[in-house]
Amino acid sequence: MSAAITLPVGVELCHLPARFPLVHGGELVGGCLAYERQGPADAPTVVVLGGISAGRHVSAHARVPQRGFWDGLVGDGLSIDTRRHQVLAFDWLGGAGSSTAPADGEAFPFVDAADQARALWHLVDSLRLDRLQAIVGSSYGGMVAQHVAAQQPARVRRLACIGAAHRSHPQASAWRKVQRDVVELGLRAGDGRAALALARALALTTYRTPGELRERFEAPPRVDAAGLHYPVHDWLAARSADFVQHWNAEQFLCLNRSIDAHRIEPRSIIVPTWLLAFVGDQLVPPSEVRELALQLPELRAHRELRSRFGHDGFLKEPVAVGAFLREVLS
Amino acid sequence: MSAAITLPVGVELCHLPARFPLVHGGELVGGCLAYERQGPADAPTVVVLGGISAGRHVSAHARVPQRGFWDGLVGDGLSIDTRRHQVLAFDWLGGAGSSTAPADGEAFPFVDAADQARALWHLVDSLRLDRLQAIVGSSYGGMVAQHVAAQQPARVRRLACIGAAHRSHPQASAWRKVQRDVVELGLRAGDGRAALALARALALTTYRTPGELRERFEAPPRVDAAGLHYPVHDWLAARSADFVQHWNAEQFLCLNRSIDAHRIEPRSIIVPTWLLAFVGDQLVPPSEVRELALQLPELRAHRELRSRFGHDGFLKEPVAVGAFLREVLS
Repeated sequence: MSAAITLPVGVELCHLPARFPLVHGGELVGGCLAYERQGPADAPTVVVLGGISAGRHVSAHARVPQRGFWDGLVGDGLSIDTRRHQVLAFDWLGGAGSSTAPADGEAFPFVDAADQARALWHLVDSLRLDRLQAIVGSSYGGMVAQHVAAQQPARVRRLACIGAAHRSHPQASAWRKVQRDVVELGLRAGDGRAALALARALALTTYRTPGELRERFEAPPRVDAAGLHYPVHDWLAARSADFVQHWNAEQFLCLNRSIDAHRIEPRSIIVPTWLLAFVGDQLVPPSEVRELALQLPELRAHRELRSRFGHDGFLKEPVAVGAFLREVLS
Repeated sequence: MSAAITLPVGVELCHLPARFPLVHGGELVGGCLAYERQGPADAPTVVVLGGISAGRHVSAHARVPQRGFWDGLVGDGLSIDTRRHQVLAFDWLGGAGSSTAPADGEAFPFVDAADQARALWHLVDSLRLDRLQAIVGSSYGGMVAQHVAAQQPARVRRLACIGAAHRSHPQASAWRKVQRDVVELGLRAGDGRAALALARALALTTYRTPGELRERFEAPPRVDAAGLHYPVHDWLAARSADFVQHWNAEQFLCLNRSIDAHRIEPRSIIVPTWLLAFVGDQLVPPSEVRELALQLPELRAHRELRSRFGHDGFLKEPVAVGAFLREVLS
């Protein structure tokens, strides 16, 4: 099913059915999923899904040597060992990668985490994989992974969710709503790029913890003719300027809405499940993950880790996440 | 010094010096402070300062029967007993009350919490008050109260700060920066009102706790032709629409900047001091207040209260705040 057109090395394309209906209505027409594989094609497959900014490229490897989002965790001899597993990952529908997504200014249907999961099953079928050894998802990827497991439980041996619960939290949803409204204000005003940077800056403030920000941005403000300049503001400006190099407003809105809409019945997830929550996570408070844990029929382990990185613990706590992944795959 | 012009009942005006220089540069020309008094004019004076949305009207009383921000705490026989104390409060310079503030679209100099304190001392002098029995400040009012005490310690018997530390926190400052940038984006785009509502919505998300929002906004989203509607979003929209009835963008920017700029040397506050922090406060984490407490030369008490209302505990925890105030004034 891979496309015959020329693509960057390591990227493969899977065409979705010509009309791919979406759970909240509407459909994708002629959609495709960009994906990447590492490890032996005949080894058990582990699907790895990260946050909205992550995609098909999980970690550096021989064919695609650029850094990924989980270098140090996925590779030969690492926690997800690519000598013993085939690792499969894809770009989000609607996101900033190479899967089907809105262009600048283009309307796009509402993509649910369940739609991402259905698209993944289509990819798994196209690769003629019978079942998944494991699906490991962090943040938005954890939400999608829950749907993957719920949709075809007989084909998933293990589910691991990091920093993800069974529903979005009203506090986080409130922050995301402000982000979307900012972007929409900017689009109306013809200043979508500045608005997108602002929305991303707000998102960044919710990914870490107050303690980490206090430690890093202790210094008093610089004063110049233009006023007071605070170190934390400089950080937000630099990071969000970087973001808008890679994303457009519509892609941001699409995945932001998709996170808010996430809601799954825990009892529908009958696959053996491992959970990891970060104490300090402002977006997915551990209390939410505890509630998920209590309702999961096949809970295998539920770990909580205190992290100064909060929600970003899935990216910034490789030692603890690595130990968790080894436990899942052992 | 009260003005001879006609004013609503209960409001009094104090003219500041014709040129009132500000600590970050610039000056107010012909500025005035709107204030309100309750209780016997010859009784010991307690100054009460609330958050940026609070002002001169602390609580309902005979001359001004409208609700205030601390009804139930200030009045005859209440924690701040207006039979035994004169209560004095004023509208913030630069804010939405009747003190000097920017009109729509008008540039306005940078007002520091220390400037508010200097203006209050001018008012105290104009009223020929020798000293203050106590100054009680919550949130922004707590920051101002610290400067009041530091500027003329011999004239302040007691200082009580609720939900305020000696400096702004980078996490809170990051949120406020996004708010200001949203408002400025809106002003550039000619849509200041919508942007102000959005900025206020973001502020609202930081005043409470995730736990309180979870309890209140448990319900799944309503679905209609326009998409998914989340209860927490409806709340934000209603509350922020109310806010923009009373504030303009420039007033919001002025006080928002003033909070960020707050920074005082704890050892400069040599007045007997009582502190109350709320466990769950996302804007002024208790850890910050603990640090203030450790450095205060005349700390009398430091209380922490777990509150599901977080920063808004100063408005929503009248029993605990009342007990704290009785301790301060006993």
